[in-house]
Amino acid sequence: MQILVINPNISQSVTDLIEAEARRTASPDTTLKMATAQFGVAYIETRFEALVGGYATACAAAEHAGQFDGVVVAAFGDPGLAAMKELFDVPVVGMTEAALASACLLGQRFSIIAISNRIQAWYRECVAANGLSSRLASVRSLQEPLRDIGSVQEDHAARLEEMSLQAVQQDGADVIIVAGAPLAGLARSLKGRIPVPVVDGVSSAIRHCESLISLSPGHATQGSFARPPRKPNQGLPESLAKLLD
Amino acid sequence: MQILVINPNISQSVTDLIEAEARRTASPDTTLKMATAQFGVAYIETRFEALVGGYATACAAAEHAGQFDGVVVAAFGDPGLAAMKELFDVPVVGMTEAALASACLLGQRFSIIAISNRIQAWYRECVAANGLSSRLASVRSLQEPLRDIGSVQEDHAARLEEMSLQAVQQDGADVIIVAGAPLAGLARSLKGRIPVPVVDGVSSAIRHCESLISLSPGHATQGSFARPPRKPNQGLPESLAKLLD
Amino acid sequence: MQILVINPNISQSVTDLIEAEARRTASPDTTLKMATAQFGVAYIETRFEALVGGYATACAAAEHAGQFDGVVVAAFGDPGLAAMKELFDVPVVGMTEAALASACLLGQRFSIIAISNRIQAWYRECVAANGLSSRLASVRSLQEPLRDIGSVQEDHAARLEEMSLQAVQQDGADVIIVAGAPLAGLARSLKGRIPVPVVDGVSSAIRHCESLISLSPGHATQGSFARPPRKPNQGLPESLAKLLD
Amino acid sequence: MQILVINPNISQSVTDLIEAEARRTASPDTTLKMATAQFGVAYIETRFEALVGGYATACAAAEHAGQFDGVVVAAFGDPGLAAMKELFDVPVVGMTEAALASACLLGQRFSIIAISNRIQAWYRECVAANGLSSRLASVRSLQEPLRDIGSVQEDHAARLEEMSLQAVQQDGADVIIVAGAPLAGLARSLKGRIPVPVVDGVSSAIRHCESLISLSPGHATQGSFARPPRKPNQGLPESLAKLLD
Amino acid sequence: MQILVINPNISQSVTDLIEAEARRTASPDTTLKMATAQFGVAYIETRFEALVGGYATACAAAEHAGQFDGVVVAAFGDPGLAAMKELFDVPVVGMTEAALASACLLGQRFSIIAISNRIQAWYRECVAANGLSSRLASVRSLQEPLRDIGSVQEDHAARLEEMSLQAVQQDGADVIIVAGAPLAGLARSLKGRIPVPVVDGVSSAIRHCESLISLSPGHATQGSFARPPRKPNQGLPESLAKLLD
Amino acid sequence: MQILVINPNISQSVTDLIEAEARRTASPDTTLKMATAQFGVAYIETRFEALVGGYATACAAAEHAGQFDGVVVAAFGDPGLAAMKELFDVPVVGMTEAALASACLLGQRFSIIAISNRIQAWYRECVAANGLSSRLASVRSLQEPLRDIGSVQEDHAARLEEMSLQAVQQDGADVIIVAGAPLAGLARSLKGRIPVPVVDGVSSAIRHCESLISLSPGHATQGSFARPPRKPNQGLPESLAKLLD
Repeated sequence: MQILVINPNISQSVTDLIEAEARRTASPDTTLKMATAQFGVAYIETRFEALVGGYATACAAAEHAGQFDGVVVAAFGDPGLAAMKELFDVPVVGMTEAALASACLLGQRFSIIAISNRIQAWYRECVAANGLSSRLASVRSLQEPLRDIGSVQEDHAARLEEMSLQAVQQDGADVIIVAGAPLAGLARSLKGRIPVPVVDGVSSAIRHCESLISLSPGHATQGSFARPPRKPNQGLPESLAKLLD
Repeated sequence: MQILVINPNISQSVTDLIEAEARRTASPDTTLKMATAQFGVAYIETRFEALVGGYATACAAAEHAGQFDGVVVAAFGDPGLAAMKELFDVPVVGMTEAALASACLLGQRFSIIAISNRIQAWYRECVAANGLSSRLASVRSLQEPLRDIGSVQEDHAARLEEMSLQAVQQDGADVIIVAGAPLAGLARSLKGRIPVPVVDGVSSAIRHCESLISLSPGHATQGSFARPPRKPNQGLPESLAKLLD
Repeated sequence: MQILVINPNISQSVTDLIEAEARRTASPDTTLKMATAQFGVAYIETRFEALVGGYATACAAAEHAGQFDGVVVAAFGDPGLAAMKELFDVPVVGMTEAALASACLLGQRFSIIAISNRIQAWYRECVAANGLSSRLASVRSLQEPLRDIGSVQEDHAARLEEMSLQAVQQDGADVIIVAGAPLAGLARSLKGRIPVPVVDGVSSAIRHCESLISLSPGHATQGSFARPPRKPNQGLPESLAKLLD
Repeated sequence: MQILVINPNISQSVTDLIEAEARRTASPDTTLKMATAQFGVAYIETRFEALVGGYATACAAAEHAGQFDGVVVAAFGDPGLAAMKELFDVPVVGMTEAALASACLLGQRFSIIAISNRIQAWYRECVAANGLSSRLASVRSLQEPLRDIGSVQEDHAARLEEMSLQAVQQDGADVIIVAGAPLAGLARSLKGRIPVPVVDGVSSAIRHCESLISLSPGHATQGSFARPPRKPNQGLPESLAKLLD
Repeated sequence: MQILVINPNISQSVTDLIEAEARRTASPDTTLKMATAQFGVAYIETRFEALVGGYATACAAAEHAGQFDGVVVAAFGDPGLAAMKELFDVPVVGMTEAALASACLLGQRFSIIAISNRIQAWYRECVAANGLSSRLASVRSLQEPLRDIGSVQEDHAARLEEMSLQAVQQDGADVIIVAGAPLAGLARSLKGRIPVPVVDGVSSAIRHCESLISLSPGHATQGSFARPPRKPNQGLPESLAKLLD
Repeated sequence: MQILVINPNISQSVTDLIEAEARRTASPDTTLKMATAQFGVAYIETRFEALVGGYATACAAAEHAGQFDGVVVAAFGDPGLAAMKELFDVPVVGMTEAALASACLLGQRFSIIAISNRIQAWYRECVAANGLSSRLASVRSLQEPLRDIGSVQEDHAARLEEMSLQAVQQDGADVIIVAGAPLAGLARSLKGRIPVPVVDGVSSAIRHCESLISLSPGHATQGSFARPPRKPNQGLPESLAKLLD
């Protein structure tokens, strides 16, 4: 099966991190195609940045329409995700919803470890939109400015581990979600040092996308995730406009 | 005061409806500037269409940056609204949140009357994002395809009135919200025929935007609605990129 | 337009604070009529005090029935508010619901700054009755006994500012609501010193009441905010009994 | 033990119904003292009527202060109840909260059978204030005008039984609550004809009030149910003012 | 009336504590029959332990079927409670739901004082299953390992009192629930030292069970608490299998 | 990898249905071991039946302890699931939580199609315990008695399809969950006839269990899903007791 993995921000270094973790996870018979947003910002922390990233993701996916069996939107916060699910007849899985699915199967309450204070509000609203606020034990985040988005996990290793432990011991987390594509793979290095399961978004998204493709549940031709009704449009990239016909 | 009113979809006929109702409402010393999305769809019913409309709205607003004291996003469902609030130091008010504010001040539970069945899911999620699901009595909508988005309220007058009455008598609505820019002004013509207050989104948004400008509460330089942190970006319209510096 | 502004407690000094802020806010063509509860307590902190204040407010409003286009109930916690909305065919706006409406239009989560520890439970229950608990970041309050209800904001200026900052930085508030008629006007003096919008209840209530009068949405003749059904009554003040006929 | 039972409305015929059911329930060593509101309306259906009834209840209770070990507020909707709990150092139990407690001990979800359509909103808000909306299966009510508040259960026997059955079979109710003092005792006559437990408010309130007196859990001298802080007051009935000193 | 009181864990010393408090509470004409789980663990802190305890409770109750007018399940967390309510035609009351009922009648928000950190998650889930999370102020617990489950309240008296005070003063609790059968009776010794009502689970359960028996509301023959539908079964204790015929 | 699949009820015909669907789904390198409850009922519809089934499931799993890399609890409603997660250091996945995870990744709101009216309450409580009530569009069920639990899907094919369509068109479901092991595989035969994705519990559980094993997130040694604390126990099956040491 072919899975298109889209990085909704413009940082190639983050795409590389995502790709490394995705390849480590994917089944042997899965082919991964990476795409990076052609416009937007270096990393997404706010609602505005997510709006741009969401539209850039839809544009990137449209470029490859018809060439994949599933899509992974590889930014925590799932920019543009619900919109993407309307556009395509194949499974589209977001990093957050995938991590939440894994976490919910592993325990009752989870904490999210994040890369910046500013990002917290967006994450909380994303959990709420998933209807899972009652299972969110806490969000904890780095407070310092990031030197380099490609090396966050190396630069802040000790603090990230410390926050994970605090989430377990002070906030009652049954599961830790290490959030954000820049932290892709950190879950593996934390394992064994944190006394509860640690969930990674990228690998969860790859696995769950493969599962949905394999389960083959059919797609929506009615209801709120059917293709948008045909109507006049203008000014859209050609590949996107074509999807709406 | 100067208020920029943006129609997030590409239909000039809808912009005209919005403008007519907005001018009827605005205070004498308010100057309105209308803008229509430069790209997108004829009218917004789905999450994907709202994503495009949200980005188009941000682009349109950026074009006029520095020339207004407040912004109204004139599509029900508030595409791109939270993103816009981060971008600008002045009040940005959406049609839905404004209608919800009016409705909540007039009664405990409200119903939403909408133009299409497909649009319901998006509206429900918008009410939920506002935290007000417990006050939503029902959403009722037209089921028929729309002949012309500019004449919905004339074409379906009797049915829209009938649905409003059902919302009061069967769903327990204390207030009716007539939703969607294509229905701008319908509230006025329904008044007196519906036994509860009837709220219009456009006029509510204009009034509440004027109020926030006048109350002058200050703007966010910290917290989740401060300007997005400065970071590399690419491929954005020049006026938008300039806002991020 | 004529707006009746009722102070639900018996303190003339608080009525004066309310009046000063109300006059500063009201449109030039708005006439304000002030009324002070004829019975009750010096300031309202508890459910019992709110019950008395609510009934006193209804009695005060009934005295002026037919002489106003809208009513403002000027105590945070909105004593008697829902009851008042049933009684009158014109908009009745409470300080809390008005402040909540302003805050919700300015950000996602708000904190409430209050004058006493005891008052917190009542405020929380009021926010819950408005269905907005999910948007409440925190309530913070003065802990010390109040020397003089008319000079709270001068006596505790530094502490009130400090609590506002803590709400932003520790509780994640996007907006600060300065609660309680004794703090009327404090929002203005805090502005520029707090890094998020600061909302005042009295000025919000005046503005939103003007808006509702101006939007002219109609009033309820059915549903749960219609006039109470006619039935035997006894022992009510004459002006109140007259409203029920 | 002495229990003061207050009818918050002015109808002696309703007080008689309450008394009959209360005496049937009370333990042999319980002495009941009945009181009827000295002012207000014939029966309470709306928020305004509940406000008046709540204040009248507080006034009635104050008259007897020091002469009881517990109080029952005998109107469904619990007018003034939380206020009363602040005022007195003994248990104060409302008909609704008592019926809800019984119902929650008997099943997971309950339906409320009510005497009028208008009363539904007030009941729903009362259940919500108790935090129990998620356990409310439905509210069903008579639609016809009431001939005589003292004979509702005779006049509408068949319809009340029919609605109870519908609540079980269509709404998934595990328990039926027969609501409103005018229906006091109906639960007994319905028993055996309804295939789930049927709860009566008056008898539940008497039993639970006896239980709380007997359990003797202590009373609040701190927290939000302590006596209201001492402060200036005016215009209150003497007995009420005395309670605040 | 005959009440069967079941200790869902295997500790006779805990059964003795329960019995002492139960006898102190029960009405003179109530006969108590004590039963101790025949299999399971020394005290229940986790979901697995509750599963075993729930089944052991059902087995113990079945042994005495037909010999009681009501049942009390005397472990906080209410193991097997909803299952038991399906099995028997008489009231079955759990310690938690009984304590919650008492607490809700005494104030708006309650805190739970517990014997171990591990037990907190189970208690929270039990409160949530009762639909009462919005009224839970906090759960506070002992952190140290327990020397002897039969003497917890003596061994940790000072700490239990301190936690109760913190719940009132820091968490806003209106009522304290002293949770867990090993703490049966502690509420009495704390009374007067804690400035809010203190609720005990065992005595609440006994009283409320007596009340339900006395109110005689009927039992479910339809709905989700009717006897399970007849169907093949195997391997159940004979007395349990007999209940299903 | 080795997965133990447990049927919590005693029907071999249902175990066969589960096995067929599980084998169809499992990866080539997955070895499935089937187990059927040694005691309990023919199929689980009520809380009591789920209690028995949960304990039977724990007993069955304990028999095979150390011989699997993951466990699937193959009854909708997830009897004993949270308890099982405490007991074992490997992933334990329930049919309901797995179906919910799939459904949430495919759409916003789902409906559940069930085999009997009686089963609805248990399913609703299970969805609520997963924190997902806000995403539940409806539960619809067969009303007729079941002739044979092993042939439900053949016997009621047309009605099951009709209910699925109603859930989409009347209840707003984005996804259909076909619930209950007796319906295992029905999703496949419905596909293409229902205009939204259709989710099967057994295949979802197998896939998600494989994913969690493969993702290898670590297991809990602290928090509420760690092994229950060591303490005295008695009367447990030897294999179960051994797990607690």
